[in-house]
Amino acid sequence: MRNQQQGQRMSLLESLQWRYATKRMNGNIIPRAKLDNILEAINLSASSLGLQPYSVIVIDDPALKAEISKGACQQPQILESSHLLVFAAWTKVSAQKVDDYIQHVAEVRGAPIDALAGFKQMILGTISSRTDAQIAEWTARQTYIALGTGLAAAAVEQVDATPMEGFNPQALDQILNLGPKDLHSTLILALGYRDAANDQLAVAPKVRRESSKLFIRNR
Amino acid sequence: MRNQQQGQRMSLLESLQWRYATKRMNGNIIPRAKLDNILEAINLSASSLGLQPYSVIVIDDPALKAEISKGACQQPQILESSHLLVFAAWTKVSAQKVDDYIQHVAEVRGAPIDALAGFKQMILGTISSRTDAQIAEWTARQTYIALGTGLAAAAVEQVDATPMEGFNPQALDQILNLGPKDLHSTLILALGYRDAANDQLAVAPKVRRESSKLFIRNR
Repeated sequence: MRNQQQGQRMSLLESLQWRYATKRMNGNIIPRAKLDNILEAINLSASSLGLQPYSVIVIDDPALKAEISKGACQQPQILESSHLLVFAAWTKVSAQKVDDYIQHVAEVRGAPIDALAGFKQMILGTISSRTDAQIAEWTARQTYIALGTGLAAAAVEQVDATPMEGFNPQALDQILNLGPKDLHSTLILALGYRDAANDQLAVAPKVRRESSKLFIRNR
Repeated sequence: MRNQQQGQRMSLLESLQWRYATKRMNGNIIPRAKLDNILEAINLSASSLGLQPYSVIVIDDPALKAEISKGACQQPQILESSHLLVFAAWTKVSAQKVDDYIQHVAEVRGAPIDALAGFKQMILGTISSRTDAQIAEWTARQTYIALGTGLAAAAVEQVDATPMEGFNPQALDQILNLGPKDLHSTLILALGYRDAANDQLAVAPKVRRESSKLFIRNR
């Protein structure tokens, strides 16, 4: 079964070659199993201290997409997508959140809380050494790792995707009522299927820096 | 041949389940083909405007690793790794860099430069609307997408990896002479093979937030 599934799949590198930042989508809906796989990959994403200091809002409500579109330069793929994922980072890391995390680690690993005291102090020390703005930036950066993982997973599932930074984050925070949840939006990822007939980039050769320029060997 | 290769591979989700932030490595060297695949995935990573505003320093020189280790809390996997990747973001996006990029897009796509005038103005507008600090932060965030892609690729290649933020970036910039290249270090990714006998996390169950907490449906 596993081999059969894999036989149908492109390799990760082939998938990454296939993907591009899709400008037009055709409105088709992603099968539930594929969406679930993409979300699971995002949940498996690495994050600093394992904290996963963000939420991901999964949107398929057309009315909500239309509201979001207004604050995002009305990019057509927002309305034409199957689902929008909004990545929203924690604005602060409260002592309660750290407690909850340590409790969860203890439960999953069957470890006594006391054995995690050093790890907890390390997290609290990291948090307290930073300003509020530095915390918000640090948690925001973690959402970009999750985006990278989600883009790879979408490509492997042959689902098209458009990562977007070009929106008004304050407006989006208000639409999604993120402020009271101590969240701030950092990224939108539109998921769906390319409308190749109306998207000239669908056939454009991929542009990437030459390896000899991107990579530096030792020093 | 393709199916045969894929038959040996775990799926992306299985690979992401398999990976963890490796604390101890055994010094074994990654085969060249696997390293090349990881680097190719990083080069295929998405970035804002397609600009890839960073370099990746690929380090296998033991003396250089030892120097880096001193400014990175002497984490053992730095010395025990096969290769270190240092992600270094552009500190500024000069008009020359934008010109070079537009020229490269024109060449790869066989498009006249004039057809890219609007795209170029859009990039220059984006750059000029930001302070130097905002530019450096924006380019830094792009390296986190590349990290997410690189971590996925390493896992698929069954190469262990440790992403690290816990180092002195100014010291690392100096060691690697990044300042004069208009680069600033943001992340270290150690690549190698887990030393399972000495790394208790090698067998620890993976801790991830419950999906019902990480994901919010609509609003």
